[in-house]
Amino acid sequence: MESRDMLYFASDYMEGAHPAILKKLVETNLEKTGGYGQDPYSDLARERIRAACGTPEAEVFFLAGGTQTNATVIDALLHPWEGVAAAKTGHISNHEAGAIEAGGHKVIELMQENGKLSAETVRRCAEGYRLDDNRDHTVAPGVVYISQPTECGTLYSLGELEALSAVCREYGIRLYLDGARLAYALACPENDAALTDIARLCDAFYIGGTKCGTLFGEAVVFPKPGTVPHFFTIVKRHGALLAKGRIAGLQFAVLFEDGLYFRIGENAIRCADRIRRALREKGYRFYIESPTNQIFVVLDREKRKALEERVVMSFWENLEGDGTAMRLATGWATTEEDTDRLIQLL
Amino acid sequence: MESRDMLYFASDYMEGAHPAILKKLVETNLEKTGGYGQDPYSDLARERIRAACGTPEAEVFFLAGGTQTNATVIDALLHPWEGVAAAKTGHISNHEAGAIEAGGHKVIELMQENGKLSAETVRRCAEGYRLDDNRDHTVAPGVVYISQPTECGTLYSLGELEALSAVCREYGIRLYLDGARLAYALACPENDAALTDIARLCDAFYIGGTKCGTLFGEAVVFPKPGTVPHFFTIVKRHGALLAKGRIAGLQFAVLFEDGLYFRIGENAIRCADRIRRALREKGYRFYIESPTNQIFVVLDREKRKALEERVVMSFWENLEGDGTAMRLATGWATTEEDTDRLIQLL
Amino acid sequence: MESRDMLYFASDYMEGAHPAILKKLVETNLEKTGGYGQDPYSDLARERIRAACGTPEAEVFFLAGGTQTNATVIDALLHPWEGVAAAKTGHISNHEAGAIEAGGHKVIELMQENGKLSAETVRRCAEGYRLDDNRDHTVAPGVVYISQPTECGTLYSLGELEALSAVCREYGIRLYLDGARLAYALACPENDAALTDIARLCDAFYIGGTKCGTLFGEAVVFPKPGTVPHFFTIVKRHGALLAKGRIAGLQFAVLFEDGLYFRIGENAIRCADRIRRALREKGYRFYIESPTNQIFVVLDREKRKALEERVVMSFWENLEGDGTAMRLATGWATTEEDTDRLIQLL
Amino acid sequence: MESRDMLYFASDYMEGAHPAILKKLVETNLEKTGGYGQDPYSDLARERIRAACGTPEAEVFFLAGGTQTNATVIDALLHPWEGVAAAKTGHISNHEAGAIEAGGHKVIELMQENGKLSAETVRRCAEGYRLDDNRDHTVAPGVVYISQPTECGTLYSLGELEALSAVCREYGIRLYLDGARLAYALACPENDAALTDIARLCDAFYIGGTKCGTLFGEAVVFPKPGTVPHFFTIVKRHGALLAKGRIAGLQFAVLFEDGLYFRIGENAIRCADRIRRALREKGYRFYIESPTNQIFVVLDREKRKALEERVVMSFWENLEGDGTAMRLATGWATTEEDTDRLIQLL
Repeated sequence: MESRDMLYFASDYMEGAHPAILKKLVETNLEKTGGYGQDPYSDLARERIRAACGTPEAEVFFLAGGTQTNATVIDALLHPWEGVAAAKTGHISNHEAGAIEAGGHKVIELMQENGKLSAETVRRCAEGYRLDDNRDHTVAPGVVYISQPTECGTLYSLGELEALSAVCREYGIRLYLDGARLAYALACPENDAALTDIARLCDAFYIGGTKCGTLFGEAVVFPKPGTVPHFFTIVKRHGALLAKGRIAGLQFAVLFEDGLYFRIGENAIRCADRIRRALREKGYRFYIESPTNQIFVVLDREKRKALEERVVMSFWENLEGDGTAMRLATGWATTEEDTDRLIQLL
Repeated sequence: MESRDMLYFASDYMEGAHPAILKKLVETNLEKTGGYGQDPYSDLARERIRAACGTPEAEVFFLAGGTQTNATVIDALLHPWEGVAAAKTGHISNHEAGAIEAGGHKVIELMQENGKLSAETVRRCAEGYRLDDNRDHTVAPGVVYISQPTECGTLYSLGELEALSAVCREYGIRLYLDGARLAYALACPENDAALTDIARLCDAFYIGGTKCGTLFGEAVVFPKPGTVPHFFTIVKRHGALLAKGRIAGLQFAVLFEDGLYFRIGENAIRCADRIRRALREKGYRFYIESPTNQIFVVLDREKRKALEERVVMSFWENLEGDGTAMRLATGWATTEEDTDRLIQLL
Repeated sequence: MESRDMLYFASDYMEGAHPAILKKLVETNLEKTGGYGQDPYSDLARERIRAACGTPEAEVFFLAGGTQTNATVIDALLHPWEGVAAAKTGHISNHEAGAIEAGGHKVIELMQENGKLSAETVRRCAEGYRLDDNRDHTVAPGVVYISQPTECGTLYSLGELEALSAVCREYGIRLYLDGARLAYALACPENDAALTDIARLCDAFYIGGTKCGTLFGEAVVFPKPGTVPHFFTIVKRHGALLAKGRIAGLQFAVLFEDGLYFRIGENAIRCADRIRRALREKGYRFYIESPTNQIFVVLDREKRKALEERVVMSFWENLEGDGTAMRLATGWATTEEDTDRLIQLL
Repeated sequence: MESRDMLYFASDYMEGAHPAILKKLVETNLEKTGGYGQDPYSDLARERIRAACGTPEAEVFFLAGGTQTNATVIDALLHPWEGVAAAKTGHISNHEAGAIEAGGHKVIELMQENGKLSAETVRRCAEGYRLDDNRDHTVAPGVVYISQPTECGTLYSLGELEALSAVCREYGIRLYLDGARLAYALACPENDAALTDIARLCDAFYIGGTKCGTLFGEAVVFPKPGTVPHFFTIVKRHGALLAKGRIAGLQFAVLFEDGLYFRIGENAIRCADRIRRALREKGYRFYIESPTNQIFVVLDREKRKALEERVVMSFWENLEGDGTAMRLATGWATTEEDTDRLIQLL
């Protein structure tokens, strides 16, 4: 399927790991440590993540992948009579094969704009539940799920996150942020929500590794200790506990050494900005305006066919007429050279 | 916790990966491939595993860890009205935090000897269900779970596996084998059940990676294609689908290149045999007689205390009086030097 | 709360059972029969229901209530990788406290009009899944859930049911009909879909008892035998198996003796039609136009307050301005006298 | 299947309801009340049950049947990382088709004697968990399930219940009692554990209706209010909420009017005692010695065959040689005449 001649802009998880991670894996390979995240590398990663979040008491756990993390954390945060409210475009709503429901919980799908939930929408949902005479026959919103950046590549501003957090706290709802691509938000010039803001405003979130330079792995953060009792066992029960936990921990220890995680997305944003500029100059239409590493462009049939002979992209959505929304994604490993070649082909 | 002066015999997952795996990861790191196991390395691993199993049509999937694999495969094999029969000592019975039950299924715990189920025990269970007038009010045995080697380090002989397989097929029950430590069975001189036998006799099994030289990863094999429809989606629904599937696939491609998987356990067996011989010569009593890489020895309080100052072992069980059953495990990375030092301490 | 002076039009399950049912319960009370639906009265009810449905081979089961029935049947019809598509207004979407999700399945909420799904909407959902390149990461529509009459009191025409059935069969999706209030559909002059049509067009449905004259109980019908293997055990596993199954069976034996079920809703429709006519004459606006035993009327604040001093209604929805949509329901036991009194109060 | 000439001693749920219940159902049939247990009859039943239990603050709910009640209450009492400990002979262990596991929880099967768990066994289980170094990988015992009388017809003494309650409270485990046949315990001269004792010693229990004179229905009691938040919604989510809740409530209102529930089992015990005496005199052997309404007798093949021509019994277990353990059950509706005829046949 792969070919040396093709340009790959299909996703941000097509390569292995950041070289610094591989280097550390090789250096430490034959050291012997305990399992299940109880090792010095996981401890070091936890320490660095707590520092980066400005939450010295935070609890940090390392899981293998995003769907698993969402299913485990959301299940852990919800009571049996509660569900999780999410944008209709949210990853848990559409692209996790029912993993949340497999854990027994409803995804309450809310209206969204460019992948984002507004505080107003969340308030309407919470208030609707509160005022419903039959609410005891319905699923209570117990968690609000958001992603930063969103599945549409857009960003919540700090003000928007603060408003969401405020309404959640007003109604006793937990706010959970899916940071699968968080490095690309943090590296984006438009972004004004720091990692410390997220840690301050959310009840739980995860710092994405798989799409941001690790071989695998996501770091779950509960800023306030004791948020979920027995989370270790809940992780195990979900089949999400890594025996060689240190392999995940070590990768995050590298990512949070000297702030690598805050820089690792910069290259992707730079390349994406160049592509966006070129597209705009050449008169392409964007399906969604996004400032991060995902670009959603409308192609007519002919143009799509021509481009797909040289470029691997992701299909996004069929549009009216003969147009298609296609996604181009850059990543930490995208080269200037590939970006140049892509721009020439546009 | 770790110390340069200590000897580590606590488990077989204390190091990273076999150097050949790391080498290949480094070499291929910046190649771009598709996700979710749809890449050339995963394809290559599948091809090699099919060849090694003698089942050219087999379906092969790569998951991250053992509990996850057991929970996903067993759930996929069972109908809603069925449960999985297992030894009381089985990993799914005791050490997976209820992951099988979290998927909605009962673990039917059966009598065992040294970690093994006999065909006769399985027949009694199946026949008991068949003859029970109230069976429609009970859980039907739909899968039999065994592990090779068992959690007690013992081995099923080929004859025993054939008998188990025969009784399962007679009663329409699926036979599933947990091969978390399969390399150590295949490398054991006492073993007479080849990988091809397992593939011939089981409906599903997994070839262990995490405990046998990978960073993480288990290879699920369904010898007969079509055994589980939509297994890919079931894996996703369990949160067990790896985005960068190639990282798991590539590790198995290395393990099954030139038969490395069949040799990787030899060192562990050799070291374990030397330790066993030394223990026997020095008059120690074994809690369980096991021929593989796990050794279960009885220590009195004083001896345990003395040894634990120099050796990291695993606690197994409190015995009558002041004795304790302790586990020593060797692995693919155990050195002759450490083995010598351990023997001197005994 | 209740008062002799109030008029009760809040729902159709405010009384006990049709007198013929109580009479039969009293007459047969001390007879001794087997449990779990294996008794002559349940057998008789099954025979009569098969005859009324024109499906001599149908399998019939008696469960206690609607939510339980929906959760059990839908779970039984779905594979693990599938979900159930339903109108956003469907009972399973909104008013069953997440019972479907508690069984592990997603409710795929579809656009509706007056409580009804169109064949076109179902086709778009099925075709969208079929054409989605990422469909293996999503929940497949395995069952379509409809209710007759709908939660909005509206009716599917025979033509609409035939179109829904055709599209479901084209895509290999099962069609399941919730007949909680089926008697009120069958008694409605506007209705042109007979019970035999439902049995011909659906893969499963239930004939409602609780809201149509029994003390409790719903009759699940699988027109084609073998639709769900081991359904008895699945019912038990859902906690839905009645020990004294005969009490449910006997009630349905009475309802289907001499066609009582086809007549039992007539009174409700007659009373509802009189109320509707009076409302229309007096210039009230309807929130939804419905021909069955549920009436949805818009009341302004003052009128609502005045009426609620004398009439127990159900709150339905807050509207823009000071209006509220309120529900009035008649039932098999509604009297002409109460209807007259209500009309005078309007 | 049924025949006028046969004697029925197969179970205690072969008839309808106690005549006083039917009488009340008939008298109140056309009254209109609210649904879901929010009606004056349910309120009255709750008031009377609270008084009978000596727990004026208790929360009381009415569900339809035993398996449903066990599955709902146990799920509500457990945290996700916990399971329920029960005797291997417990109803939830063997005869509920995996309903507990369907809710995601393991049944931890403990050694028993004549159907009873000892406080010592529970302590060993709790202490074993506490001392297990790997306990975070295992299922914590969160609830202890017992039944009174047990599935073997035996009784816990007050002293035994106090010891069980004490060990549960010491370890922070909840004690739940299944009272499916509680009336037969309360009516038994050997019994010294009053309903008030049960309410004092347990965290939750249910007072059985189905086997003790109702058409259906079990009354769940949480002696301490607030034991389970949102239990109403949890009941709904389990499909266990009765729309016409008053039908269940009214039956319990009758059972607890003038202490009927305390007398309703007396006749069954009297008849059972006469049968037991006759069996003993005629030299029969008992499989289990039980003082309540269930009798477990050993029959050889010939005797069984002869008796089964005239008497409907329940099969219990095949024994060594040609013997079978059979169960004879009496109930609130067993007549002296039938008892005489049975004794003559022995």
